[in-house]
Amino acid sequence: MNEKSLRPIYWDGDAVAMIDQRVLPHKDKIIRCTKPQQVVNGIKNMAIRGAPAVGVAGALALALGARRIETDDPKDFRKKFNALSRRVEKARPTGYNLAWAVEKIHSVLVENPDAGVPELKDLIRRKADEIMEADVEDNKAIGRWGREIVPRGARVLTYCNAGALATADYGTALGVVRAAFEADPTVQVYTCETRPFLQGSRLTAYELVHDNIPATLITDNAVGTLMQQGRIDVVVVGADRVAANGDAANKIGTYMVAVLAKTHDVPFYVAAPRSTIDPAVPDGSAIPIEERDPKEVTQFRGKWVAPKNMRAYNPAFDVTPNKYIAGIVTEVGILRKPFTTSIREALQA
Amino acid sequence: MNEKSLRPIYWDGDAVAMIDQRVLPHKDKIIRCTKPQQVVNGIKNMAIRGAPAVGVAGALALALGARRIETDDPKDFRKKFNALSRRVEKARPTGYNLAWAVEKIHSVLVENPDAGVPELKDLIRRKADEIMEADVEDNKAIGRWGREIVPRGARVLTYCNAGALATADYGTALGVVRAAFEADPTVQVYTCETRPFLQGSRLTAYELVHDNIPATLITDNAVGTLMQQGRIDVVVVGADRVAANGDAANKIGTYMVAVLAKTHDVPFYVAAPRSTIDPAVPDGSAIPIEERDPKEVTQFRGKWVAPKNMRAYNPAFDVTPNKYIAGIVTEVGILRKPFTTSIREALQA
Repeated sequence: MNEKSLRPIYWDGDAVAMIDQRVLPHKDKIIRCTKPQQVVNGIKNMAIRGAPAVGVAGALALALGARRIETDDPKDFRKKFNALSRRVEKARPTGYNLAWAVEKIHSVLVENPDAGVPELKDLIRRKADEIMEADVEDNKAIGRWGREIVPRGARVLTYCNAGALATADYGTALGVVRAAFEADPTVQVYTCETRPFLQGSRLTAYELVHDNIPATLITDNAVGTLMQQGRIDVVVVGADRVAANGDAANKIGTYMVAVLAKTHDVPFYVAAPRSTIDPAVPDGSAIPIEERDPKEVTQFRGKWVAPKNMRAYNPAFDVTPNKYIAGIVTEVGILRKPFTTSIREALQA
Repeated sequence: MNEKSLRPIYWDGDAVAMIDQRVLPHKDKIIRCTKPQQVVNGIKNMAIRGAPAVGVAGALALALGARRIETDDPKDFRKKFNALSRRVEKARPTGYNLAWAVEKIHSVLVENPDAGVPELKDLIRRKADEIMEADVEDNKAIGRWGREIVPRGARVLTYCNAGALATADYGTALGVVRAAFEADPTVQVYTCETRPFLQGSRLTAYELVHDNIPATLITDNAVGTLMQQGRIDVVVVGADRVAANGDAANKIGTYMVAVLAKTHDVPFYVAAPRSTIDPAVPDGSAIPIEERDPKEVTQFRGKWVAPKNMRAYNPAFDVTPNKYIAGIVTEVGILRKPFTTSIREALQA
C-alpha cells in the first residue's frame, strides 16, 4: 500500500486543509482555508464532495468560523454562529450529512446554555473533531459488516466515489471493498467513470490503484453489457441521503445501475453511515435533487464538446427506490427489508 | 434550416471526401482520400462512423481502389480487386453494412464474367454510387414509416448518432425524428452524450441544432432519471447489425437504454435499413463486438483523466435482445414480432 494519505480534509494548524478533488489524480493540490467561506466554496465547487466528507467539511467550517467570531457576549456569539450555520448548511442540497453535522454541532449550543464564548468555541471544535473521527470508525465498521455481502472471488461493481475521498477516510462502499479485499485478495472491482464529473475515473480509480486492488474502469453505459456477460457478482454504492423507507439518493446514474442489477439478478447494496439517513423524509420523492451547470456536460475542462447553443440537463443525483436495494450496510449492521422498520431500529440503536 | 450539408462522404472530383467526424462540431475538416487505404484508415480511426456510412465508405473505397488498379487483364484485375475487398471488409467488425456493401459490389464481378477492365471499373463505380444514393432514399422511407411511432408532442430519446452523419444522409433514427418533427413541430428530442466518443454531444446535437429541432443533451447515466420522471415517450436508436431474430447490436449503452425503457414501459424502436440486417447471424450472441483502445476511456483528447496505470475495458457495442424491441423501422415498413418472420419477409420484399 502507498503511504500517501487519502484523507480529504484535516486540520493544518489553525486552518482547514482540503485535497482539491477537482484536479485529482494528476495534480496534488491542497486548498488551505482560513475562513469558513472558503470551505463552503470548496463544497459548492466540488473541491470536496461525497456526502460524509461534505458533512465533515461543514463541521470543520463551523469550528473554524466559531473561532473567528469576535465577541465576548454569548448571545451575540450564538446569533452570529447561527447565521454561519445557515450559510454552511445551504452549500449543497442533496446530501444529508451536511444538515446532520450542522445539527450535531448546534446541539452543543443547546446542551450548554450557560457556557461562555471561549468554552463554546472549544466545545464546537471538539464536536467537529468527534464527527470527523467517528466517520472513520463508522466506515471501518461498515467495511466489517459489508464483508459478508461480497462472495469469495467476487467481481464488485461500484459507482461514483464512495471512498476515503468521499468521507473522513476509508470510505463507505469502498470501505466494504477494502475490507473484503483484505480478507480475500481474489476480489476484483469494476468502477464506472461517472459522468460528468468523472469521480469514478479520477477518484475511485485513484484509490484502487493506491491500495493495489485489482480494478477495471468502464464507461457508465457499459454496466449493462458487463452484467449481461455475467461479469458482476455484487454492486455496492454509497448514498447522499437515505429516506425513512430506504429510498436512496446517490450520484446520477445509480438508479440506472440498480435497474440493471435487478434485471440481471445481481444484488445491489447501499453502504452509508446512519448520518446519511434522514428520518424526516418519508420517501425518495421528498429528497431535493441538485441541478448543476449544464456546462459540466457541454464542456470538458473548459473546452466545448457540444455545440455552444446546445441545451443540456444536468441533475447531479437520482433516487433509487427501496425495492431495488438488497440491503443498506451501516456501522451498526446490514439493514434489510422492510427498511422502514430496520432503519427506525438502527437510528434508535 | 442551415444550408450546410451533413453528407459525411461524397465524391470530390476523383477523390473521396469525408467529413472528419472526430473534430466535429467545432472544427470543419474534410479528409480528401485519393487512395482506398485512406478511406479504410478513416473507418478504423472513426473519422467516418455509423454502420450505413461505413458501408457507403467501403463502397466508395472499392470504386476508388478499382480505378487505381493498373492492369488490362480482367483476371489480374479481379485478383487484385478481391484482395482490396478483403482489406476493406475488415476495417471494422461489428457493423454489417460494410460487409453488405462489399458483397453488393462483388456481385458486379459475378454478374459480369466477361467484362473488360474499363467496364468493370465503370460498373463498380456505378454500383457504389447506387449504394450511396439508395441509402439516402431508404432513410427517407424509414422516416416516413417511423412517423407513426412518434406520438403528437412526443419527447423522443435517441442514443449515439444515427443521423445524416452516420449514413449517406438524413439518418435512420434521426431520419425518424426529422420526419416526425416536420409533421409535428412540438416534437422534442433528448440525446445522450454517448461515452466515450461523445457521438451524442458532438454529432447528434450538431445535427439537431442544424435542423432547429428542440433538443436537450444529457449524460448517458441520466436516462433512468428522465424515464422515472415520465419525460420520455418513445426511444428510437440506430443499429450496427441486426440478427435474423431481431437482436440488435448498436453503440455501447443502447442495451442499458432498452432495459430502462422496458422498466418504464417506454416503447423502444430500432431504425435501420435492410442492409443492416445480417440473415446469416441467427441471434445476437454471434455478432462480433469490437473492443477499442482503453485509452479512449482513460484519456480525453489526449489528456489522462484516470491514473496512468488504470486498466479499462472499452467494448464499442452491445447487443439488445429482441424482447426489448417494440419494432424495427426499415425502408419497407415497421417490422414487428415475431421478428424471425417479419425480418425474413422484409428481406424477400
